[in-house]
Amino acid sequence: MALDDGWYTEEWAGQGSAISLKIARKLHEERSPYQTIEIYETESFGRLMTLDGLVMVTDRDNFIYHEMMSHPALFTHPHPRRVLIIGGGDCGTLREVLKHASVEVAEQVELDERVTRVAEQYFPQLCASNGDPRARFHFEDGIAFVARAAPDSYDVVIVDSTDPVGPAAGLFSEDFYRNCLRALAPQGLLVGQSESPLFHPDLIEAVHRAMRTAGFREVAMLHFPQCTYPSGWWSATLAAKDAKLPRFRETAAADRPFPTRYYNAAVHAGALAVPEYLRKSLA
Amino acid sequence: MALDDGWYTEEWAGQGSAISLKIARKLHEERSPYQTIEIYETESFGRLMTLDGLVMVTDRDNFIYHEMMSHPALFTHPHPRRVLIIGGGDCGTLREVLKHASVEVAEQVELDERVTRVAEQYFPQLCASNGDPRARFHFEDGIAFVARAAPDSYDVVIVDSTDPVGPAAGLFSEDFYRNCLRALAPQGLLVGQSESPLFHPDLIEAVHRAMRTAGFREVAMLHFPQCTYPSGWWSATLAAKDAKLPRFRETAAADRPFPTRYYNAAVHAGALAVPEYLRKSLA
Repeated sequence: MALDDGWYTEEWAGQGSAISLKIARKLHEERSPYQTIEIYETESFGRLMTLDGLVMVTDRDNFIYHEMMSHPALFTHPHPRRVLIIGGGDCGTLREVLKHASVEVAEQVELDERVTRVAEQYFPQLCASNGDPRARFHFEDGIAFVARAAPDSYDVVIVDSTDPVGPAAGLFSEDFYRNCLRALAPQGLLVGQSESPLFHPDLIEAVHRAMRTAGFREVAMLHFPQCTYPSGWWSATLAAKDAKLPRFRETAAADRPFPTRYYNAAVHAGALAVPEYLRKSLA
Repeated sequence: MALDDGWYTEEWAGQGSAISLKIARKLHEERSPYQTIEIYETESFGRLMTLDGLVMVTDRDNFIYHEMMSHPALFTHPHPRRVLIIGGGDCGTLREVLKHASVEVAEQVELDERVTRVAEQYFPQLCASNGDPRARFHFEDGIAFVARAAPDSYDVVIVDSTDPVGPAAGLFSEDFYRNCLRALAPQGLLVGQSESPLFHPDLIEAVHRAMRTAGFREVAMLHFPQCTYPSGWWSATLAAKDAKLPRFRETAAADRPFPTRYYNAAVHAGALAVPEYLRKSLA
């Protein structure tokens, strides 16, 4: 069958595959200084935000990504107080970070302020914590921000970026990771989204190598389903500044005083299981 | 963008979403007594088999499904000797089952012999163990086969079925599970594919209930990525006949003398982690 015009389709670049979501109507379209931002009402996935034609977030499945970009790192650090989010313009990761009572400040550095403003309008639940007094917003280039950050400024840095093309490519570089390392305090952790284990194993390996070469002492992959991202399977890469990655705070994760929908202590442990075909290359 | 005619598209029924694979050419099409069987050469997923227009198997991603339908059950049973596979016509699950040296006989009951014959022609690697003297093929209705199976005949029953519509609907019923229970020997295990945790949580809950009502003592979900199945995320449900599900044989899994690509002991443990939103309903 061929799909009619009532579908939004993202072709998964270089992978001979595509996902389509049935659209009820387009709610918004604008050209920001950086990209085209579109919002759709879909038939079965709630609202959808795309940037330059690529799926960023849907109401239905974003909970997995946002929880897995935040809670594993925050339950691995012994006492995360200062968190830096690079990217993350839809504010879903920020919302999860701010669920942690130990967090005193969460700074978010998003290049495109319009992404956040549009998210505030169309994804109010993701932006529910934007008014939290611990949240600070910077709308500028994350690479430059980290390059000039004071040493030992953050306990956790989260790179919630778009794909490694265009302005986001630098967020996957050894130079950037070296600046993150410097900005992190002792016991600091870096976590970055690192694409699909099925489609992009070479990228995941390259991220591991670059983080190690930049000086991170130990690097680990987390993986989780993410229906509307390429292959439906996604990863994050977690790195420890100055020691082996500690075992995560399992009791605190199990007893967390806030709700989650995907994350729990067992899911956290399970997400660290490396598929056999990646074991050697990530060792 | 809209996709041109060079794509195979499966609309995910009732989910307002679809996956598409870019096609190089169609290799085969036939109408068997039960369904339309098509084989395509894709651009990036190797060969693709569809039944009545639904993706069954691709060269690129079938390893995850086949390994997760077999090894978790076989490494949970203390000594699996007699295995029954219901469905499984592409023979990929059978191949994985026969990797276990303890298995003395693996019977496969596939309704449509043409699926297996076409798989032998177009997916020879999945059928590499079809000539194993321990393999026995029955081409008939699996529901009737299990209904007349002698009690205590099998150590593990694997239901490697299509979706719960049409002839396969009965493979998700309490009556069928009751017959499986009877056919299983003491310590016996049943495992069945149980659709997407994102799209079909109600079905997964119904399968759990039906297995328990049929008399299985404990039921657990396994989940894993599966790019070309609806939502890219899939599940299997594992049930124990007459005792709590034992902890799996972790050392044997770690020391398995055969190759796998996705499965290993850590992946096995991780696949049992129940996402938070399913915890209460599956408890």
